[in-house]
Amino acid sequence: MQGLLLVISGPSGAGKGTICRALREKMPEVGYSISATTRPPRPGEKDGESYFFLDRERFLQMLKEGAFLEWAEVYGELYGTPRKPVEEALARGQDIILEIDTQGAAQVKRYYPEGVFIFIVPPSYSELEKRIKGRGTESPAAIKDRLAWVKKEMAQLDLYDYVVINDQVEEAVAKIQAIIIAEKCRTKRLKKIGWHQLFWS
Amino acid sequence: MQGLLLVISGPSGAGKGTICRALREKMPEVGYSISATTRPPRPGEKDGESYFFLDRERFLQMLKEGAFLEWAEVYGELYGTPRKPVEEALARGQDIILEIDTQGAAQVKRYYPEGVFIFIVPPSYSELEKRIKGRGTESPAAIKDRLAWVKKEMAQLDLYDYVVINDQVEEAVAKIQAIIIAEKCRTKRLKKIGWHQLFWS
Repeated sequence: MQGLLLVISGPSGAGKGTICRALREKMPEVGYSISATTRPPRPGEKDGESYFFLDRERFLQMLKEGAFLEWAEVYGELYGTPRKPVEEALARGQDIILEIDTQGAAQVKRYYPEGVFIFIVPPSYSELEKRIKGRGTESPAAIKDRLAWVKKEMAQLDLYDYVVINDQVEEAVAKIQAIIIAEKCRTKRLKKIGWHQLFWS
Repeated sequence: MQGLLLVISGPSGAGKGTICRALREKMPEVGYSISATTRPPRPGEKDGESYFFLDRERFLQMLKEGAFLEWAEVYGELYGTPRKPVEEALARGQDIILEIDTQGAAQVKRYYPEGVFIFIVPPSYSELEKRIKGRGTESPAAIKDRLAWVKKEMAQLDLYDYVVINDQVEEAVAKIQAIIIAEKCRTKRLKKIGWHQLFWS
């Protein structure tokens, strides 16, 4: 059976990263897509582990070749999800998780509508506000920008199959595990692999 | 949040009954619909527990009033799922399981397309054949009839959201539990209760 492409996204501050790290520990058999970027590696970051570090020319060449499932330019640096490792994992039956922002998720949806799109959200807007302000690392203007951006991201809700409210990380992770099990039982997926014909043999 | 209506069905011999008994033990908080019937109680059967025992006149009256979610006549006796207890459970947020045959499931689908329709199947046709013959209680002609009927039931596959292959009961039950958790995260269900508006308050 083809693996599941799990797209885990949601507004910034929802805790996608924490959830994905916990999932990774609980489900080491699941693959995690590694992004490519043109930004230089930070101390301790290894090529092919944290990111695939590419120069701008190579990135743009790959972009032209359609080698990215999704990509974006952030503060002048390019980021993207290489298509090939994802497709190879799915073909050999491995589930693979893409932790990406809502713009990236919208791009992936165009290529892989059969992916499982999970929207991670904080329990409420006021909780999110508290989390973002609580970091204490940003100026009031930056906080305001970020919260305005969150509103735009939240408006993407309809693109997603599932909403997982990140109140307790453990609980959110258990829900994603349940979603993976349930999706593998979906009639449309079993029909796609011809299960309804295999049954009679 | 409105409860989930879980319709558990599948061809005869798939093991629906065994799975539902195991589910009942694991999830005592879930409601189980009790059918009404015109057939007389067998020794040990209690009214309102095994079945609601009704006389034919009362059953037909209720049928006329639209009081059944689904019904059928089997060997001259009437069987049906009373609508009211199901609707009351769902309204108070309780999930409720209907264990019914494929014809009943098709009727329920018309009223409750938002129900969760789970098709329980044996691992293969040859395994099902073995199970039915292994009972040793039926004549070759009855077995032939039953297997022909199974083919008709299997053709109902597309009506169902999920297929759970009953190889190991424990595993099948765990899959149904995962389906329940996942369905409660579905975007369309959260939108129905206005979650996307509550988020901002």
